[in-house]
Amino acid sequence: MALASLVEELRAFVSERDWGQFHDPKNLAMLLASEAGELLAEYRWIPNHRADAFSREPEARQRIANEIGDVAIALLLLCDRTGIDLEAAAQEKLARNRQRYPVELAKGRAARPLG
Amino acid sequence: MALASLVEELRAFVSERDWGQFHDPKNLAMLLASEAGELLAEYRWIPNHRADAFSREPEARQRIANEIGDVAIALLLLCDRTGIDLEAAAQEKLARNRQRYPVELAKGRAARPLG
Amino acid sequence: MALASLVEELRAFVSERDWGQFHDPKNLAMLLASEAGELLAEYRWIPNHRADAFSREPEARQRIANEIGDVAIALLLLCDRTGIDLEAAAQEKLARNRQRYPVELAKGRAARPLG
Amino acid sequence: MALASLVEELRAFVSERDWGQFHDPKNLAMLLASEAGELLAEYRWIPNHRADAFSREPEARQRIANEIGDVAIALLLLCDRTGIDLEAAAQEKLARNRQRYPVELAKGRAARPLG
Repeated sequence: MALASLVEELRAFVSERDWGQFHDPKNLAMLLASEAGELLAEYRWIPNHRADAFSREPEARQRIANEIGDVAIALLLLCDRTGIDLEAAAQEKLARNRQRYPVELAKGRAARPLG
Repeated sequence: MALASLVEELRAFVSERDWGQFHDPKNLAMLLASEAGELLAEYRWIPNHRADAFSREPEARQRIANEIGDVAIALLLLCDRTGIDLEAAAQEKLARNRQRYPVELAKGRAARPLG
Repeated sequence: MALASLVEELRAFVSERDWGQFHDPKNLAMLLASEAGELLAEYRWIPNHRADAFSREPEARQRIANEIGDVAIALLLLCDRTGIDLEAAAQEKLARNRQRYPVELAKGRAARPLG
Repeated sequence: MALASLVEELRAFVSERDWGQFHDPKNLAMLLASEAGELLAEYRWIPNHRADAFSREPEARQRIANEIGDVAIALLLLCDRTGIDLEAAAQEKLARNRQRYPVELAKGRAARPLG
């Protein structure tokens, strides 16, 4: 599967550089949050109603894809280091969210979903 | 593939609740950053040398997996909304990082890798 | 001055609880970022054009003030620990921003200001 | 008072550039979180036990002060826009934290303080 082979490549990348010593889960959580902050920065002056169109502008799109790549790498490194399965964690959370936000109550209401 | 079917489930979850109206890329980038902040909070008082062991303690592990699930969901929603391929974005970034951090220069040195 | 006396109170609060051991600058930077993430979460589903009005709604306002308080405390703790003067740092950055964003070029254009 | 005069200067800076249109509270919360992410990035590969010494190295110190300046500016802009008093918000939160973390229970224990 594509994600598994990507994780293999990330492991080789880290191992060749002897970076495992820096990649404890605390530091990887910091990496993830700082990369998420860079992604956030791309949108900070874009009003909501322009955010979809902005994301399609070629230059902006490249920067956004770039930041998404950084966030994804940080997340995969953290999952690999902790042995937490990314997809299983997301599936479990989705199952919980289905219970926390029943359709009949949550429909069309944004009150703190996924919180 | 597992990730693709998860994205399908997320689409259904959002659509049933009519939440697409709130999920423009700006708001999803905010969701992602705030969830990354919650994950960060789990590690803020844990020293580096205890971060691996902490991540294996059952209660902490469950909370961390929970936050990783939130981050993954936010990231997948953002990729789906913008049409940016998560794995391709990570692969491209990894290829760039291989060039930016040649093994002979980067080995054992943490100076702003993946930055 | 009010800020200086607040810092004094924060020092006493930390010292009484023997929390200085946890408050190295790395951990305080994590605290600051996670609190900034909680503040961010308050606005994630609020569209730009409603953000001012939302900030005046009594319940939202109380939560926002609460999160601003957390961010301010984290920032003051970090400045105190590192010996960096908050106001001087802001003044220096403002002076740099005046040069980086000359009025004639920056007027009405949001392209990465304060970046 | 120094903070008040700094806020006056920030108002002039924003007004001269006609940037008030971009500075609704949502966008300023994003600015704050992204600047907090940049500050975080400075410490992401520094182990806890070196974080104090690192913060005193001249080059690192200048970068950290720079990022602290950005965070402070974003926080002051947000407080000014929403009319929330920074010091009062911090004082209120400190009063609450005194109750949430009684000395006899919290002493030497880092369990989610200031959370």
